[in-house]
Amino acid sequence: MKYDVFYGKGMGKVKKEYPEIYEVIKNLNEVVYTGKVLDYKTQKLIAIGITAGHCDETATEKQMRSAMKELKVTPEEIADVLRVVLLLSGQPAFTKGMRILDELTKK
Amino acid sequence: MKYDVFYGKGMGKVKKEYPEIYEVIKNLNEVVYTGKVLDYKTQKLIAIGITAGHCDETATEKQMRSAMKELKVTPEEIADVLRVVLLLSGQPAFTKGMRILDELTKK
Amino acid sequence: MKYDVFYGKGMGKVKKEYPEIYEVIKNLNEVVYTGKVLDYKTQKLIAIGITAGHCDETATEKQMRSAMKELKVTPEEIADVLRVVLLLSGQPAFTKGMRILDELTKK
Amino acid sequence: MKYDVFYGKGMGKVKKEYPEIYEVIKNLNEVVYTGKVLDYKTQKLIAIGITAGHCDETATEKQMRSAMKELKVTPEEIADVLRVVLLLSGQPAFTKGMRILDELTKK
Amino acid sequence: MKYDVFYGKGMGKVKKEYPEIYEVIKNLNEVVYTGKVLDYKTQKLIAIGITAGHCDETATEKQMRSAMKELKVTPEEIADVLRVVLLLSGQPAFTKGMRILDELTKK
Amino acid sequence: MKYDVFYGKGMGKVKKEYPEIYEVIKNLNEVVYTGKVLDYKTQKLIAIGITAGHCDETATEKQMRSAMKELKVTPEEIADVLRVVLLLSGQPAFTKGMRILDELTKK
Repeated sequence: MKYDVFYGKGMGKVKKEYPEIYEVIKNLNEVVYTGKVLDYKTQKLIAIGITAGHCDETATEKQMRSAMKELKVTPEEIADVLRVVLLLSGQPAFTKGMRILDELTKK
Repeated sequence: MKYDVFYGKGMGKVKKEYPEIYEVIKNLNEVVYTGKVLDYKTQKLIAIGITAGHCDETATEKQMRSAMKELKVTPEEIADVLRVVLLLSGQPAFTKGMRILDELTKK
Repeated sequence: MKYDVFYGKGMGKVKKEYPEIYEVIKNLNEVVYTGKVLDYKTQKLIAIGITAGHCDETATEKQMRSAMKELKVTPEEIADVLRVVLLLSGQPAFTKGMRILDELTKK
Repeated sequence: MKYDVFYGKGMGKVKKEYPEIYEVIKNLNEVVYTGKVLDYKTQKLIAIGITAGHCDETATEKQMRSAMKELKVTPEEIADVLRVVLLLSGQPAFTKGMRILDELTKK
Repeated sequence: MKYDVFYGKGMGKVKKEYPEIYEVIKNLNEVVYTGKVLDYKTQKLIAIGITAGHCDETATEKQMRSAMKELKVTPEEIADVLRVVLLLSGQPAFTKGMRILDELTKK
Repeated sequence: MKYDVFYGKGMGKVKKEYPEIYEVIKNLNEVVYTGKVLDYKTQKLIAIGITAGHCDETATEKQMRSAMKELKVTPEEIADVLRVVLLLSGQPAFTKGMRILDELTKK
């Protein structure tokens, strides 16, 4: 379930042609998202913050989508993440995040 | 209390010489860290993730320090944030974050 | 007039659903673009430089468009900004900026 | 031949309207890609690594395309570059690179 | 005079050991800082904005120092540049810029 | 031998306190640096390019140091990597890389 986010065009190719990379990425995701104290949902909110702070549209969209689908993260929770992005990464990163959220919630 | 993180050499100058900038940054921090649904602590963990993901040492150190002091965030919680940084921003960003955490917890 | 640049899909959602964020962003823009000594136009040229230096296509396009429309900034002035981007951020950032400028001036 | 990568919409405009910038970029490319000890192909692999590590889709796609066309760089070689990107820039940068490679090799 | 900013430890080595790189960088600086319409000072302000927006301390410090020394750029002008950085790159980049400015003006 | 680069203050803490993260990073390094076609040395040169292109001083210094020590990479080879950094990431990233190289070769 936790690996949902890395399925996609890029990772499909990896699974088929580079199984050893696929395997280590799967293990990496497992270790990363099995925090000692923070739950998976909090870690996913952090993941949204990091990708939105990087201004990486594709990754932000994937993180938001998987957070909403897998973990029932609400648009309000994502907006609260984007507040922090506004402060730490500036208005363009924030606006981009809001536009992606807007598009996802309209679907 | 929430503004602790922006005290420092840079902001001292701003408060004295550019009070209108200081004022808007104070308001911005207030609005950002008053989420509708996420609590302040979760937002601070997100802030640590974003600054560590940016490889910004000074800002990461400030965020970690203020999170531990103000909100009793534990080293284990920060390590769980850094797991996500490892996945999304790579090993150098992760190692840097771990070194800062190490230095802060030794003091 | 100065707020033109933050209208758009992302900010429309913010205005309606998160008026307190909208308000603080409006104030922030007001304070930022009311420099003590530099005029608004110089600050807009700087804004183009920063967004183009970040390789952020959407934000660069918005900044260029609003600078040309609001302040009659010319393509030559923008090209002079992009020269600095070439030196400080490298050729890909420069080429991207030039392509955006090209598309905007053809319309 | 080495300048192939900077032809495109952005550079076409530069050549016509800013010949002095075009000239210096041509010289810059010449000096950069005439290493003392590393051959051109190794430098192109490094270029793919840097642009993919920056998460810059357009530039990554250009670098991969020109490397494959000019220098017969193979998809396996590019995948070995992307391994390093995975380690140093994280999974989103890696996945993006793999998707671009996938699209290029399907054409 | 325009090349002041690239003297330093790194460039000293380049001049001695890699004269062909030194030459092309000198030409690049000449072309970049000879804008068609913008004057050198405006371009230097843009350069400060870009380096401060990148959170690159060493480069920001060099740009500010050379702008103040060569072109009599005032601290107030630099603060007006940093306002734009606050909006477009976030508070950590702004605070870092202000701290550097503070240290430079105290000397 | 390939893991040399991740020893250090940050990773020492990880090995002791977060052995499961240490384990996955070790595997990740193994998979990353065991390319199908490129040799380890070429991949290390790419790693230097990526970290120098990110302007990450600590990571760049580590990569250069381990490349010179483990693999007898020469300063000339590193300079050829930095040429590509100059083109793709701009002069500040290049100068920083050259300064680090200068310091390492003087020791």
